[in-house]
Amino acid sequence: MGVAKALTVAYDGAEFSGFARQTGPRTVQGELESALSTALRRDVEVVGAGRTDAGVHALGQVVSFPSSETETDDRSLIVSLNALTGRDLRVAEIRTAREGFSARFDATSREYRYRFTTGPAPAVFTRSFSWWVKAELDVPAMREGAAALVGEHDFRSFCVAESAEGRSTVRRIDDVRFDSVEDMGEAAVVMRVVGNAFLHSMVRVIAGTLVEVGTGRCSPERVAEALRAHDRAAAGPTAPSHGLTLWHVDYPEDCWL
Amino acid sequence: MGVAKALTVAYDGAEFSGFARQTGPRTVQGELESALSTALRRDVEVVGAGRTDAGVHALGQVVSFPSSETETDDRSLIVSLNALTGRDLRVAEIRTAREGFSARFDATSREYRYRFTTGPAPAVFTRSFSWWVKAELDVPAMREGAAALVGEHDFRSFCVAESAEGRSTVRRIDDVRFDSVEDMGEAAVVMRVVGNAFLHSMVRVIAGTLVEVGTGRCSPERVAEALRAHDRAAAGPTAPSHGLTLWHVDYPEDCWL
Repeated sequence: MGVAKALTVAYDGAEFSGFARQTGPRTVQGELESALSTALRRDVEVVGAGRTDAGVHALGQVVSFPSSETETDDRSLIVSLNALTGRDLRVAEIRTAREGFSARFDATSREYRYRFTTGPAPAVFTRSFSWWVKAELDVPAMREGAAALVGEHDFRSFCVAESAEGRSTVRRIDDVRFDSVEDMGEAAVVMRVVGNAFLHSMVRVIAGTLVEVGTGRCSPERVAEALRAHDRAAAGPTAPSHGLTLWHVDYPEDCWL
Repeated sequence: MGVAKALTVAYDGAEFSGFARQTGPRTVQGELESALSTALRRDVEVVGAGRTDAGVHALGQVVSFPSSETETDDRSLIVSLNALTGRDLRVAEIRTAREGFSARFDATSREYRYRFTTGPAPAVFTRSFSWWVKAELDVPAMREGAAALVGEHDFRSFCVAESAEGRSTVRRIDDVRFDSVEDMGEAAVVMRVVGNAFLHSMVRVIAGTLVEVGTGRCSPERVAEALRAHDRAAAGPTAPSHGLTLWHVDYPEDCWL
């Protein structure tokens, strides 16, 4: 019977030229397709839930491809794939979905996290996964600014220009929250953004704009103004890619067999 | 007035040939002494609380050097030192201690942590700081084995041979505990060992021996037997250096000015 397989994949984005396959540079899609083709002894093309940019990380990226009920044993496929891919990419789980399942088009929501560290000294253990904003951040002001983003809006001001041409830039953000966390003994502020889908660089422009608010360079009201302007120039700078992680992707329960 | 300065230092051990200064290879002591000599415009020699091996990390290493009350402003020295050292080393704090203070000889206890990850797929974000033990670990059995190590003992079986020659190998372990943790979304088992002082590679031999217990290759009783044998061959293998972090060092309160 025809089914689809869905891999949950984590990667450190530093050494990848992004998710999407390219001729030449190392990409997540290219590395997974190559490993799957070797393990399954046939050509495999995959679809990812999020086309992460160069340098962006993932904990719960989901990647799908068509398969059959009998093609593979999931447990041994996990072992094979982790032996065939670099140490900076891990296949954590394999699930079986109904035929025709697409990790991209069936996703109902995506969660990204952006990590900031503050203060006079940068992080060491988590330095590859966080943006060192030297100033202290006024998190309540950032929360106030972020509230304007929740809901369905035209996010044209919060994406890089080329992705806006001729396509809808309306997306829905369900939640933006900020938490103080400690990982590996190092303190950080983490912004979690949950939404149905995201435009190119949208989370990074949101992060960069809210840092302008958190450092006092602009007021929380500027976020709502930037949203209404429908103009990239009205929002703040694009935060660096290495602070961003695609954390989790949700699907309807009835996708899974 | 003569005082001593104590730096709290974190580093990713991967690109250091250990703590202790060597001619040629990059070391933590060498990098700090070079940065301090540049910042203070004089030769500076430092003493560290723990002489960590090549590849071993630190979150709370303490490093001291003689100074005077007027030599430096601590806040600007932190900024200078972090500008002068690599991104894999951070000076987090500077404290002032009484004249004659030694980060090594005044330390009353040291805490090391050893991080293990288990299961079919290795960690990605925390891979440089944890040992991937593919098998699941029987943590209650590891706790039972570790209990034999608590107290004052001759740890000759748990150190590399050369460090035992002609010197006391008696040390005191105050606590060994195991916790399940999650950092950056990745699960791990962390062993914390607190003691007055440690022999060369002692925590790594303890970790390697307790993994033998946790994977069922030997019984918890073997730890006590290994301790009594006073023979390195009676204990388990030395766990890899990259799983180990010098976490914290304690001093008597009256050291600080």
